[in-house]
This record gives sequence, C-alpha cells and structure tokens, in this order.
Amino acid sequence: MSQAATLTALLSGPDQPGLVARVSGKIFELGGNILHADQHRDMEEGIFFQRIEWEPRSAYTHEEESNAFKAFADNLGMSAQVTSSKHRTRVALFVSKEDHCFHDLVLRWKAGEYNADLVAVVSNHLVIADAAKSYGLPFHLIAFEPGELGKRKAEDVQLKLLEELKVELVVLARYMQVLSADFLKRFGKPVINIHHSFLPAFAGGKPYHQAHERGVKLIGATAHYATEQLDEGPIIQQDVVRVTHRHGVPDLVRKGRDLEKTVLAQAIRWHLQSRVLVYGRKTVVFD
Amino acid sequence: MSQAATLTALLSGPDQPGLVARVSGKIFELGGNILHADQHRDMEEGIFFQRIEWEPRSAYTHEEESNAFKAFADNLGMSAQVTSSKHRTRVALFVSKEDHCFHDLVLRWKAGEYNADLVAVVSNHLVIADAAKSYGLPFHLIAFEPGELGKRKAEDVQLKLLEELKVELVVLARYMQVLSADFLKRFGKPVINIHHSFLPAFAGGKPYHQAHERGVKLIGATAHYATEQLDEGPIIQQDVVRVTHRHGVPDLVRKGRDLEKTVLAQAIRWHLQSRVLVYGRKTVVFD
Amino acid sequence: MSQAATLTALLSGPDQPGLVARVSGKIFELGGNILHADQHRDMEEGIFFQRIEWEPRSAYTHEEESNAFKAFADNLGMSAQVTSSKHRTRVALFVSKEDHCFHDLVLRWKAGEYNADLVAVVSNHLVIADAAKSYGLPFHLIAFEPGELGKRKAEDVQLKLLEELKVELVVLARYMQVLSADFLKRFGKPVINIHHSFLPAFAGGKPYHQAHERGVKLIGATAHYATEQLDEGPIIQQDVVRVTHRHGVPDLVRKGRDLEKTVLAQAIRWHLQSRVLVYGRKTVVFD
Amino acid sequence: MSQAATLTALLSGPDQPGLVARVSGKIFELGGNILHADQHRDMEEGIFFQRIEWEPRSAYTHEEESNAFKAFADNLGMSAQVTSSKHRTRVALFVSKEDHCFHDLVLRWKAGEYNADLVAVVSNHLVIADAAKSYGLPFHLIAFEPGELGKRKAEDVQLKLLEELKVELVVLARYMQVLSADFLKRFGKPVINIHHSFLPAFAGGKPYHQAHERGVKLIGATAHYATEQLDEGPIIQQDVVRVTHRHGVPDLVRKGRDLEKTVLAQAIRWHLQSRVLVYGRKTVVFD
Repeated sequence: MSQAATLTALLSGPDQPGLVARVSGKIFELGGNILHADQHRDMEEGIFFQRIEWEPRSAYTHEEESNAFKAFADNLGMSAQVTSSKHRTRVALFVSKEDHCFHDLVLRWKAGEYNADLVAVVSNHLVIADAAKSYGLPFHLIAFEPGELGKRKAEDVQLKLLEELKVELVVLARYMQVLSADFLKRFGKPVINIHHSFLPAFAGGKPYHQAHERGVKLIGATAHYATEQLDEGPIIQQDVVRVTHRHGVPDLVRKGRDLEKTVLAQAIRWHLQSRVLVYGRKTVVFD
Repeated sequence: MSQAATLTALLSGPDQPGLVARVSGKIFELGGNILHADQHRDMEEGIFFQRIEWEPRSAYTHEEESNAFKAFADNLGMSAQVTSSKHRTRVALFVSKEDHCFHDLVLRWKAGEYNADLVAVVSNHLVIADAAKSYGLPFHLIAFEPGELGKRKAEDVQLKLLEELKVELVVLARYMQVLSADFLKRFGKPVINIHHSFLPAFAGGKPYHQAHERGVKLIGATAHYATEQLDEGPIIQQDVVRVTHRHGVPDLVRKGRDLEKTVLAQAIRWHLQSRVLVYGRKTVVFD
Repeated sequence: MSQAATLTALLSGPDQPGLVARVSGKIFELGGNILHADQHRDMEEGIFFQRIEWEPRSAYTHEEESNAFKAFADNLGMSAQVTSSKHRTRVALFVSKEDHCFHDLVLRWKAGEYNADLVAVVSNHLVIADAAKSYGLPFHLIAFEPGELGKRKAEDVQLKLLEELKVELVVLARYMQVLSADFLKRFGKPVINIHHSFLPAFAGGKPYHQAHERGVKLIGATAHYATEQLDEGPIIQQDVVRVTHRHGVPDLVRKGRDLEKTVLAQAIRWHLQSRVLVYGRKTVVFD
Repeated sequence: MSQAATLTALLSGPDQPGLVARVSGKIFELGGNILHADQHRDMEEGIFFQRIEWEPRSAYTHEEESNAFKAFADNLGMSAQVTSSKHRTRVALFVSKEDHCFHDLVLRWKAGEYNADLVAVVSNHLVIADAAKSYGLPFHLIAFEPGELGKRKAEDVQLKLLEELKVELVVLARYMQVLSADFLKRFGKPVINIHHSFLPAFAGGKPYHQAHERGVKLIGATAHYATEQLDEGPIIQQDVVRVTHRHGVPDLVRKGRDLEKTVLAQAIRWHLQSRVLVYGRKTVVFD
C-alpha cells in the first residue's frame, strides 16, 4: 500500500554469511529506504532467497538503479530480477469455453487489483468473444486445425501475437489446450495455469470426475507455472473446499468454479507483485 | 443429544418409490418416535441410503425391535444394521511409536466423547506401554519376527486377541504396519486407519517427505476404512492445513499431528454414531 | 440435481410424535416420490422443522398439490410453504456504489446457478447503471432527498416498483442505506443483506475499520435476513478469512470483497432452493 | 529448525530511514550470521517492528552479545528484547476444572514442541491435581475464600509462588477466574488467556450459550494477552469452526474444545519463539 514508486528485487543464489547485511547495506548506500524485506534459506540445498522492496531516493532512474543493483547481485553470485512499481506487466489471457475465471480476472483488473495491462484475450473458440469485447478487450480467435501440425501452426500464430504485443505473462484461465514444450521454450516467459484439482491428486483430464469417483471429502484447485510436464509445474497456490456424498459431478464443477477463481486470482496477484521465486519444482512465495 | 435410549438403523439397497414413507411408517407402527432421519439417493447407481434414529416405545426389548426392523428391511430388499444407544462398541487401538493420536483418542474417550469401551491397546513396540498403563488400559505387545511368516504369526496372535475380547472396531492410530488381506478378511469387522496425506495424493510411505518434495501449499490427513488395497479404502474424513516454503519436513510432521488427531477423532465419532455407510470405494456420511 | 419438476415443502410447528411418518405418508398417499427429506427438532423450544422435496405423480397441478399439502399441514398445526421447481423467484437487487457483489450475482445468474429472474436493479446512485444495462438488466435510479421525509418518499417509490414487478425477494448487494422498519413491514417478503463483518462482532458502520482497530486475526462476512434491528436479523451464512498485521484497511476491504461475494451468493442459493427456515432470531438451513 | 544456538531480537520504535540496513549491519559487525529477519511498518503510526534471528559467532557469551545489541538499539531509540535459544522460558499453567487445554499443552511440551519448562500447575480446584501429578508436574492448590478480600489473599499467594519459581509466562488454560488489574501489574510479565469465542463477539461469560442464542454459523476461540480490561487484550491468534442449527450448546462446547486447544497452543508457540510484539491493543506476529 506504499504510495511512492518503489523497486522490488527478487534474489536467489548460494547461501553465504552476511548476505542480509550486504544487500540492505547496498540499498542504503544507493540512498534507498527499505520498505519490506523477506528472506528464506533452503537449509538442505544451501540456497538463499530474498525479496526486498525499497523507495529509491537517488538521482538515478528506476532503470539505472535496477541495473546498479543487478550488477551488485551478480558480483555476489546471486541472480536478481528488479521490477519498478511504475511498470505495468503486459498480460495475455488464454481461454476456451469456461468463462468464470475470465470474468473474475477482468473484474479484478477493472477494480484496480492488478498492476497490469490486459493486452489480449486469446481463444480457440468464439464463446468468450462477445464478453471480451463488452469489456473493451481485444479478442483473438486462433483456431486449431486437427493433428500435430494444426497445433504447431496455431502455436506459431499465438507466439507471433505474444511477441508483437510484448506480452510478459500468459495466464491460462481454464484454457483447455496443452501448450507444447516448444511453445513454452520459445515464449520464454512465465505461464500460469489453473488446474481444477488439489495436485498432485487427480492430474490430467476430468479431475472432478476423478474426485467424485474416488469419494474424496474435499476438492481442490491448484495454480502453477506451466512446464513441459503437464500438471507438474511449480505450485504457487492451492485451496480446497468441503464436499459430501450429496454432491454430484455438476455440484463439484459449480463449487470448484469459486475455488478456481480465487486460487488463480491470488497466484496472479503474487506473481505481479514479484512475490514468487521458482526453484526446481517448487516456489518460494513471499506473501 | 437425546437423553432416552434410541435405536439407529443404517439402510441401503435398490431405490424404489415410497421407501421414505414405508420406513417411517414401520417405525410409527412399532410405536417409535423418529428423532432424526436422513437419506441419500445415488441417482447414477440407483441406490437408496438412509440413517434413521428413533426412540422405541414398544414393549419389545431393543434386540427384539432391532430384529423386527431388520426383518422388515429384508422384505424390502434392503440391508440394515440397527444399533442401540445402550450398546458400547468394543474398540482396540493399534499403535506403534507415534503417540499423539493415541493420547488424543484416549483423552476424548475419558472425556465421554465416545460411546465405546477401549478394550485393548496393541503394539509391536513398547514405546506406548507405560502411557497405556497410566490410563488403566490393557497393553498387548505383539512383536513381529522378520519375514512373511513372522507377520502371519503375529497376525494370528492379534486375531485371537480380538476374538477373545469381542472387538468390534480396530483403530489404527498411526500403526506403522500394513494389515494383510487375510487379516482383514478373518477379522471381518471395520478397521479405521489414519493416513498422513490428502489421499489419493501421496499414498504409500513418507507422505510428508513426498509433500515437501513436491512443494504443495497444503498438507492433509485422511481417515479411511482399511481394505486390501493399501490407502485405497473408502474415505470417511479428510482435512488440510496450509504450509509454506518455510516449513521443512519436521514442521510438516508437527503440523500434521494436529490434523491427524482431529481427522481420526471425527471419523471414529461418526463411525460409533452409526453415521457411515460404505458402498464400493466410497462412504455416505450422515453428519 | 433431479431433472423432473418437484415440489418442496418447508414445515414448522410444535413437535409431536409421528410427524415424520405422517408427512411422508401424506406424500405417498398423494402418489409422490420423496427425493429428499431433512428435519430438525429444537429440543429446548419443542419445535419441529422439516424440508421435504418430492416428485409429484398425481393428476393434480403443482398448485393443487401444494394446496392439498398445505391443508394437510394446517390440520397438523404446522405452517407450511410449498414451492414448485417450475417457479422462478422474482428478485430485485439493491445496490449503491460497490459493484463486486452485483457482478458476482449477475454472472452466477447468467451461468444458471439460480432458479430466479432478476427483474430489477435499484440504486440511489448511477455508478452501476451502465454495468446493469450491459447485462440487459433494467436499472432504476431512486435517489434520496435529504432527511427523513426524503427517505420515506424514496421508499414509497421503491415499494411501488417492487409491487408492480411482483418482486418476491430483495437482495441488498452492498446497498449502503438502512431500510426502515416501515419498508420491511410493507414489503412483507424476505430481504437478504450482506454485512461485511462476522456478526455480532463489528455491527454498524465501517466494520473493516473497526476490525483493523481491534487487531483481529480473521475478518468475516455475514448474510442475514434484514429486520427492524440493524445487523440483528437471522443469520443465514457466515465465513471468515485470515488477516495479519500486514493488512491495512484497504487490504481488508479487498480480501473482504471475495468473502462478501461467496457468503451472499451461498445465502441466496439456499434461500432460492427453499432451504432456509427462520424462527426467532435464528435460521435452520437444510443444506 | 536451526541446530546451532541463536539469538532473537524483537525491536520496535519510531520508523526512520535505513533501520533495516543499520540493524543487519550491526549484527554483521558482531560477526553474526542472520538466519531470519522480518519487519513491519505501521504506516499510520510511523512505528517500525522487527524480528531478527542470528547465529552469533563472536567470542561474547549470549548475554554479552544481547547486551551489546540492546545498547545499540537503545542508541537508535528502539526498544529491544533479545532471547537466546539456550534459554528455556519458565511457564506456570493456571487451570480450573476443564482439562482439555491442560492435557494438550502438557503433551505438546512432552513431545518437545516448546522450548520451555513447566514449573507449576496452579488451580483453585483439585480436579486436575491427579493428572498433573501423573505427568510429574508440581500442582499447587490455591483456593479462593469468598469476597474481594478472599481473592486478594489468593492472588498474594499466587504472586509469591510465581516469584519464587521465577515464572516468566503465565498461561490461563481455561482458568475460570478473572485476574485483577493489581495482579497483572505486580506480576509484570506476560499472561496468555484463551477465550472461547471469536472476540470481540461474545466477550464475558458463557460465550457458547451466547453464540447458540444468536444463531451464528461459526464459533471461535481467541488467544490474547490478559490486560486489565477483560477480553480486551491484544489478540495473538484466533480461529473458527463451522456449526449448524443441529448443534446444541453441548456440541458447541465439544467442538470448541478442539479449537481452544489449537489456538492456545499456537499462541504459546509464537510467544515462546519471540514472534509476538505488542503495541497498543494489537499484536504483530512474525510467523
């Protein structure tokens, strides 16, 4: 809720004594006032993680101060991303036919919850086209011809669009297609997916049917970064809701919609606020 | 919270019109006053389930009225169990080294939460022996010699004990041995187990290690009836608790203990109150 | 999830032996097939409550069978409401400037979650006018002139509109005006309000400010029927979400929006499905 | 989960630029390795709060290094408490007749969850005497003669005992007496209480009866520091559990017991780990 513009760094690298002091000392030296600092050590792996947010007070531009900080981190053997609060992340929403996450995200964005610009809605169906337009959002129909080749062609079109629009984050808001490993590699930027189960339970297709079949007493939703391995990417957020024997599959679908919305919305908020660091199959979330 | 003695029937069978009316009519005819009645229809499978609790007011004993009701259900093509609130279920606790579920259950039992008698504490270790004795509970050490034969011998001793003590329910309160299919068949009565994960995620050994490795944001516990297929039995109750990157395996173990206690305690309460009906791999819980 | 048309009765009255049997016997006699039946006894007050849903199979219309059932209940000394699943409840939404509950409810309604018709959006502000129109909903601006007289005049206009539109349920979806006792009496039908606190904590104005001031660790939302006593009406649903010292009032407002949406949506669903019985300051919710 | 001995400082005072850097710089200068550091700014009040834990590597004893750090904080205009992980807090449990929190805390303590010594169990009733002795804990019966004078006399005896035993924390584990303002002042150290409602709702006596009377859909428990104003002290932890119209007061009492146990246990853990800072009527909890 800080009013002034800030810089936020996400740092990670091999742990070593004195890191907290050195990082905060550097920002002090740059004239910055640290507003928030949070760190974590993975003791088993010997890795240090930090999120640090400060109000720059130097004569530098945000870009110059970011670069100065990144050079400093580099010298420490740490990797660092630095984001200015003045930067609005450019986001593309990928959707199919289910529109609940779509409406939820757009309404949050319109309510000012996200420091982001929604630059495109991409779909292989026309179902959501009118809703997107009613919000004033550019809608792109990119249909899939059958087969592997059809998919590759469609992904080429998608990638070209993402590049033209300088998209920095793709959100799969109940997008029912699996992105290819090649797509993820060529896009090279984060992709957040919502899976409608408490992963790793019920990975793959029709998770509510699987859950109903197994007779679980809670159903879940999981927001994660998409990786080559379907439903195996680093988990950002999960939540569950209670169900009983009275709930058939359509009830699970209905109850699950509310879960999917809040879990995905939270994961995106954390991502946009530079609160998520990925390492291996896991995330550190500085909330 | 009814003060007077009651009978509770659990009914299941093929659905047919008029069942609710016929069952309540029968109890009315027997002179009983229905206190609670709850039913469920599995529309897909065409099965009817009912729990009905009434205050008998006839000249019959509870046993006679139970038999009359069971004969009636039989005629309808339904299977029925009828339990008197005067009956105290005879329970054996199977434990290993972890004592948190053990203490929790015994303290609840001493506080009057359970309409049951704890007739035996069975273990393959001595760790819990003193605690059991301090509560005045008979402790039985039944150690396992190595190998398949050792297991069979130990199970023979366990089964003989359960038979002698007329045990009606076995609770595996973090008992670290897998009961053989043969044991379950010969015992022939319900066995409730607590598994320290949100099944079906992380079945098998070391679920907290698996959860930590996968980086999930919630850990769970699952109470279920033990069946031949390990961790595949009908689920009675599940719950979860939030964890973060800050929680190492020992933290998950500590937080999980609280979950395991409440989930297992709830499942046992429901079972003892005749609230659980099993069908296939699922349960109907009339709570 | 029953496909065929059904009737649902909500019954309440002095407890007496045999009620469950008599009610189900009556429906059987009418040729109906009972799909769900749930009852509750308030032992202290000696009141019996029941919700019973059945598939009528007689030659009667729904209206005739409802009347027959109501006459039967009357004879038993019970009050009964009977609702046909073919009936769509006519709902008016009262809103002010906050639009999150408004959008949430309309999107659920459009998704088919509610067996209802949204016949009017009423507001004392224009803020939500365009959004209402974009959904194709009739928007009525009824502004308030200052003072008690201004309020009475506005309420007269509101009541006239509700009468013309045959409104059966008013939902106060973050409507920031207090309805007068006179309004409630003259409208004579249910009004559901969402209060942004865990009542009875933080009744009255600015509950998030009060919560922040007090340093609570959970914030809540409460959906209740509006009564003469502000924030004292019978509670239908409540939920909470965790907050910490890091959350300022704007964060509570943001987190609270999600709570308010789901709590209000759930209360309305239960009301529309004839699952809520009011007695005194309390509700019985047959979920 | 750090193995080596650590020091933990809790700091608070007027916010000023550069505090994070100066504090971590000081620890670096002392040769310490910072393991965890967490801070908070109350923007409205202009107060800075920090918890910082480090592994000392100097030749100083823990006491010397603590004093050096406190002198440094003093110079900055900050107040600081510094605690060594080698220190075991001396705790007295005050109990009455309800024993669930008592057993729960003692079992957690025996399981190694708390870095503390339980040096006394104090009660005005004999109900828990045997249980205390069976755990090997010294039990002190301090009965109350009627009237204000009787209370003052009993408190004098309590205070003398606490002084003799060098008690550093009193836990009111469902102790049904109200401590006088004079007692709190003379003891001068923290007292943690568990109240069986979601404060500020249902303060005062018989909260479960109040909750049942009001018809709430969730019941709660609140752990807070005791202050002169009954049930008004700074809240450390709260939680809730769902109830329905089916739950009578005895059910609320039973369900509440589980809540009370976990909420109190968590509050004590945070307190013993130096995670709680009080300011005004609020707490900052660095969890």
